[in-house]
Amino acid sequence: MVVGFRAGRPIGVYLWRSVGLIQSPAFKVEPWSLHEVELDLDVLAQCESLFTLANGHIGWRANLDEGDPNGLAGSYLNGVYELRPIVYAETAYGFPEQDEVMLNVTNGKLIRLLVDDEPFDVRYGELHSHERNLDFRSGLLHRRADWSSPSGRRICLTSTRLVSLVQRSIAAIKYEVEAIDQSVRLVAQSELVVNEPPPASSGDPRDSDVLDSPWHSVSFGSDRTRAVLVHSTEFSKLMVAAAMDHLVDETTSTDIVGESFPDTGRVTISVNLEPGERLSLVKFVSYGWSAVRTREALRDQVDAALVAARDTGWDGLIAEQRNYLDKFWERADIEIEGDDEIQQAVRFALFHILQAGARTERRAIPAKGLTGTGYDGHAFWDSETYVLPVLSYTLPEAAARALSWRRDTLPLARDRAVQLGFKGAAFPWRTITGAECSAYWPAGTAAFHVDADIADAVIRYVHATSDSDFEKGAGAELLAETARLWHSIGHYDAHGGYRIDGVTGPDEYSPLADNNIYTNLMAQRNLRAAADVAERNPDRARELAIEESDIAAWRGAADAMVIPFDESLGVHAQSEGFTDHQPWDFATTTPEQYPLLLHFPYFDLYRKQVVKQADLVLAMYLRGDAFNPEQKKANFDYYEALTVRDSSLSACIQSVMAAEVGYPGLAYDYLGEAALMDLHDLEHNTRDGLHIASLAGTWIAIVAGLAGMREVGDSLGFAPHLPDGMRRLVVNLVFRSRRLRLEVTPETVRYQLVDGDPLELFHDAAAVTVATGHDALFEVARAASPQVPLAQPRQPVGRTPIHRVIGSLDDEQAKS
Amino acid sequence: MVVGFRAGRPIGVYLWRSVGLIQSPAFKVEPWSLHEVELDLDVLAQCESLFTLANGHIGWRANLDEGDPNGLAGSYLNGVYELRPIVYAETAYGFPEQDEVMLNVTNGKLIRLLVDDEPFDVRYGELHSHERNLDFRSGLLHRRADWSSPSGRRICLTSTRLVSLVQRSIAAIKYEVEAIDQSVRLVAQSELVVNEPPPASSGDPRDSDVLDSPWHSVSFGSDRTRAVLVHSTEFSKLMVAAAMDHLVDETTSTDIVGESFPDTGRVTISVNLEPGERLSLVKFVSYGWSAVRTREALRDQVDAALVAARDTGWDGLIAEQRNYLDKFWERADIEIEGDDEIQQAVRFALFHILQAGARTERRAIPAKGLTGTGYDGHAFWDSETYVLPVLSYTLPEAAARALSWRRDTLPLARDRAVQLGFKGAAFPWRTITGAECSAYWPAGTAAFHVDADIADAVIRYVHATSDSDFEKGAGAELLAETARLWHSIGHYDAHGGYRIDGVTGPDEYSPLADNNIYTNLMAQRNLRAAADVAERNPDRARELAIEESDIAAWRGAADAMVIPFDESLGVHAQSEGFTDHQPWDFATTTPEQYPLLLHFPYFDLYRKQVVKQADLVLAMYLRGDAFNPEQKKANFDYYEALTVRDSSLSACIQSVMAAEVGYPGLAYDYLGEAALMDLHDLEHNTRDGLHIASLAGTWIAIVAGLAGMREVGDSLGFAPHLPDGMRRLVVNLVFRSRRLRLEVTPETVRYQLVDGDPLELFHDAAAVTVATGHDALFEVARAASPQVPLAQPRQPVGRTPIHRVIGSLDDEQAKS
Repeated sequence: MVVGFRAGRPIGVYLWRSVGLIQSPAFKVEPWSLHEVELDLDVLAQCESLFTLANGHIGWRANLDEGDPNGLAGSYLNGVYELRPIVYAETAYGFPEQDEVMLNVTNGKLIRLLVDDEPFDVRYGELHSHERNLDFRSGLLHRRADWSSPSGRRICLTSTRLVSLVQRSIAAIKYEVEAIDQSVRLVAQSELVVNEPPPASSGDPRDSDVLDSPWHSVSFGSDRTRAVLVHSTEFSKLMVAAAMDHLVDETTSTDIVGESFPDTGRVTISVNLEPGERLSLVKFVSYGWSAVRTREALRDQVDAALVAARDTGWDGLIAEQRNYLDKFWERADIEIEGDDEIQQAVRFALFHILQAGARTERRAIPAKGLTGTGYDGHAFWDSETYVLPVLSYTLPEAAARALSWRRDTLPLARDRAVQLGFKGAAFPWRTITGAECSAYWPAGTAAFHVDADIADAVIRYVHATSDSDFEKGAGAELLAETARLWHSIGHYDAHGGYRIDGVTGPDEYSPLADNNIYTNLMAQRNLRAAADVAERNPDRARELAIEESDIAAWRGAADAMVIPFDESLGVHAQSEGFTDHQPWDFATTTPEQYPLLLHFPYFDLYRKQVVKQADLVLAMYLRGDAFNPEQKKANFDYYEALTVRDSSLSACIQSVMAAEVGYPGLAYDYLGEAALMDLHDLEHNTRDGLHIASLAGTWIAIVAGLAGMREVGDSLGFAPHLPDGMRRLVVNLVFRSRRLRLEVTPETVRYQLVDGDPLELFHDAAAVTVATGHDALFEVARAASPQVPLAQPRQPVGRTPIHRVIGSLDDEQAKS
Repeated sequence: MVVGFRAGRPIGVYLWRSVGLIQSPAFKVEPWSLHEVELDLDVLAQCESLFTLANGHIGWRANLDEGDPNGLAGSYLNGVYELRPIVYAETAYGFPEQDEVMLNVTNGKLIRLLVDDEPFDVRYGELHSHERNLDFRSGLLHRRADWSSPSGRRICLTSTRLVSLVQRSIAAIKYEVEAIDQSVRLVAQSELVVNEPPPASSGDPRDSDVLDSPWHSVSFGSDRTRAVLVHSTEFSKLMVAAAMDHLVDETTSTDIVGESFPDTGRVTISVNLEPGERLSLVKFVSYGWSAVRTREALRDQVDAALVAARDTGWDGLIAEQRNYLDKFWERADIEIEGDDEIQQAVRFALFHILQAGARTERRAIPAKGLTGTGYDGHAFWDSETYVLPVLSYTLPEAAARALSWRRDTLPLARDRAVQLGFKGAAFPWRTITGAECSAYWPAGTAAFHVDADIADAVIRYVHATSDSDFEKGAGAELLAETARLWHSIGHYDAHGGYRIDGVTGPDEYSPLADNNIYTNLMAQRNLRAAADVAERNPDRARELAIEESDIAAWRGAADAMVIPFDESLGVHAQSEGFTDHQPWDFATTTPEQYPLLLHFPYFDLYRKQVVKQADLVLAMYLRGDAFNPEQKKANFDYYEALTVRDSSLSACIQSVMAAEVGYPGLAYDYLGEAALMDLHDLEHNTRDGLHIASLAGTWIAIVAGLAGMREVGDSLGFAPHLPDGMRRLVVNLVFRSRRLRLEVTPETVRYQLVDGDPLELFHDAAAVTVATGHDALFEVARAASPQVPLAQPRQPVGRTPIHRVIGSLDDEQAKS
């Protein structure tokens, strides 16, 4: 099954030149790590994405230490991009003129190795074994390779990599090579390399001009163990500095030479080893970039960071990392007993969300994090609607920083609103800096819901943290500017309804619609929250030039918002007229014709009843208050039959609502799809980077789906139900400076306040107060007689998710 | 006022670097010619378009004989184009991958002149006088220049050009230079030139690659007075041959040399002239092109055509041309007494429509004819909806040929339908060969009404000619294939209505609409006509695999067609939901912000009530039977207030309906706008070529507007009303092999059958039979008391057409 395409950028044939799932025996299912037990060159690029180390500032794809072979060489710095002109076949007013493209920066991972006179390359000689292990608790990527050179020299190489979550500009590698059975001369070349050649062909002729060698050397230097390179970009005018230093266990035979060139820094370490002896070195790498600082300042900055890292030392860096992660897992871990694959997947997901968001320091969280160049490194609404909900309950300070980035981009969003003829701020559909980079406006600029999604993330963050400073600061400004947009983009119709016409909701197969229900409901929430916050903070409201009349106008528009409902069908219409459209002919659509956008014209997709991804169903989750239970069920059933999940953003939301309306089995199937999106490469493009939003969706499907968590008043409510066969679910989260732990078994539900002030929360709508040492324990009611299962909703032909039998994996493993 | 932009291709800044109107004293208003009495280099390119000579196969812009200076050097052959890849910022399924671009072919107009040692160039020396005159009756372009060289040699140059309407591949020039007051040595270089440099910058970076030097030399040759060049294109694989021959009045001093090079053929004639003596020569040029013939065949073809032309001789060519045009004007002339400017304009229009359509021989009639490279030389629905109505009643054989071209392109249109997932034929929005070249699908491919427009043109042609052979042949096939499209593109809703969702009607500011009323009504007409023709021609129906069930299905869909009507407003909705949209804020839109598409995003234009061009109003003209008089008036008033005429296709249609619903003054104002579109350069882009559809609209506004002509049963009906101040209107036309003449004065209306069988026609709905020698004469009823004028409808602020006072020009000229 193939899911997960977003309209955008040229469709390369490469999407379909994809390999099978990463389900080979090369991978082992382990609860706290991703463990690859052999190297499969066919999925090299996918594994580079999966094993990426990042901290939100630096991203290192898991390219092999020696550089070659690689699927996609990638080292990234959040916010570092080049500009590229956007050429339109037919242009028009307001089309963005420049694209921002995330750049592959200085590669500091590289340590090439010469074994006697032959380069260590896994494609030559004999690779006796090769293992990689990404440990979610230590935050380290371990590698071990046992290799004989073509001429028979055997070595054992181990490397351990980290990208520090504590020292933001630091990455480091411990690299060891042992001679096994003969004496060898080793030459290790530890490098910084700039302008690595891009992969063979991107399919986009425009790429070649700008992006083949985007970096211009500004300065370079080296001494015996150190080197530094400073480069700049041509159009975006950014400067990047990268430096490295080395600690080497020297012996009498060790020789070390440092040298540097415009695009290369190199420290060469040569040594003679007898069998059993090893070369051991630690490489520290530091990065810095700026649009304003001088080259000298930048060079000094990376040199200083190196000094700090070297002072901390390898063991110190490891200890810091472990400490940081221990704290994270205390607050965020999810335990699942009964489905090892999902247990692994949810920790994999949380680890990568942490890596994407931990240290962004007011930069975007791109759709692929810093794991690859997919979507050109752009951030979308995914951040606010999928990733920030997770961070708000696990690492809220990271959520605040991501929203502060949006606040920092307000000047650009205001300019864009002016250009489009609106008030307030029009946030971009896709961007790195905050400037709109969407080159197909029906599935880009027209998706104004991104404004409401940002507002929604502000509301959720403030609810989850009671961070009133944030509310008064960035929060109030974001809410006011987005509310202004909604108030200028809609209008009152002849019957007093407030309409928002011609916009694109999450379902990109039904764009430019009148009164898209998701957009209208989210705009309603946005307008009301802006009014609430302005009233709560009158001084701040004055600063933001919010008048009484504005507040009244916002409330008026929100109250009058048109919510389309089809009386004859008894369901809400995703947008006005949607239910009058012809249903897509699923019966004659073949499995190979998904994702539909690659096989059918937009023209036909747009005018028929076919839903790319949860839209109304997402509205029912995020605006559950706007629907009664009967509507939710009827709507879910109706739209389930139309939703093809041609986006990776869909399954997790369908999981949440399936759970709510009473389809626990289906909910779990969708959870499985969301959770394994990258681990099983379901979308066939994990090579370009991970689907951070779908990873976040794994958490959402568990916490909002299985555990049924919703905001209730000033607190949280839960409606947990374990799927059959699951033995235990534990959710840890933070809420308003408290650590909360929820443990569900088939028999009981336990709420535990690990620390913080007592909290009233809701279990199946019943209020209960928990305090430290005073858990709330509920027994799960057993039905006296087996319930008649609900008739299951139908999906489009061939789009039923893979059914997941809980415990099957254990059983199969037990069998084998 | 600026009107007339069609979405399409990059918006060049040049659109606004435009000069003033061609209303300077350089032009004289004359009934049978376009007469320029001095040369204004600021409007050089516009005049090149206005004075173009063409025959539907060859087009020669009125570049000066000597080549320099020029605005846009242009020689065109209908159907000769190059392919250019279309690069999309974000591509998608079904987007056309190649553009077709009309090429500037071999320039055969060129005769350079050296006067003693100085080149004749109007920018140097002294131009004592310069006149050009395009004579609509002779079809000749005369030029006379009286010039002294910088060193004081005075000459008088006269040239007369023709592009033969009789000998399709022939153009010719008579060129004479007289020495005035001193003896001079003249050297005339008569040339064929290929790969002329394009104008400085097109603003489109893609152009440069392919189109700078599109021609590759295949062969070339020359003798004393002749030269031939054969060239081919790289991607479209077309071959073009051009040859020239000369007749020179030789004297003892005359020296003639012929030579040729890959991109140039040249015959050099030098002569010494005493004062009063003249150099006189005739240049014959022949063109041929083919995608399949060999270079030898093509070379021989142009050589043979030259022989025929030379045998005919200059005087023979002139006589043929005059004879051809006499016959045309007998059948097509329109006389207007009381408004000299409109009199000139309508003959200018008819002349250029003739030039665009006369000898296309189953090629397209491009939107600009063969007068310039605007819209890349593409043909649109303009041909069928604007140009063919004129040709059907004036030169019906040309209409048949144009429709036969569409039939010839059916294989491409069927392929496109398959690609898009439909049955039948999906004709392209813009094309040269029949392949879709539209690179912005919402205002391109989605405008499926082009299918119904072609069907409409078939129906009209057959009605106007009773050409049953055509009906059975191309007509039946076109109707069946377009009907099949409509039957596969629509669907029945829950209430039994037949819906056509998500298409773009003529109003490109409201695209991707459900049940666009124009599209639905025209599709209805199409479906019914296809059924009628199939039933009338059962054998042909079998050939075309039309089953009884198809006919029933077509009729069923037509009968059930959804026609949106807004009960609360009492007007039809242009499309479903249109009247619920927010009206455009015309009050705050400034005159400089028109055309709106250059100053506002599509997003906002698409979702508001603002109409680019007649859409529902066009439907009321073409499908008048679907509206009652009250609806027509209410609809006209409602949409008039929303229509901004940002397209040159709008004014003429508004004129027709204004006349029908009772606004004769407004109708005349719109007629004026349509008629003067190019003569006054209202759209500021006449430099790129003439607006053939708006020229045709001039005829439509007069014949369907002032004369009120409509199809009635098997005949025609008229409802003529002269505007106040007009003294006489005469319309000549052909109908079913008859010549019909209508003469309207303030007092009387006379119908005259000039030849052919008696005909029953309708005057103000009253049947009357005319026969040769038996005119029908009606007196115009005078109201006993002056009628209360209707309240005038309102246009958007600032978009009221310029009010035209009939007779004002005469009065002003009398005053001055």
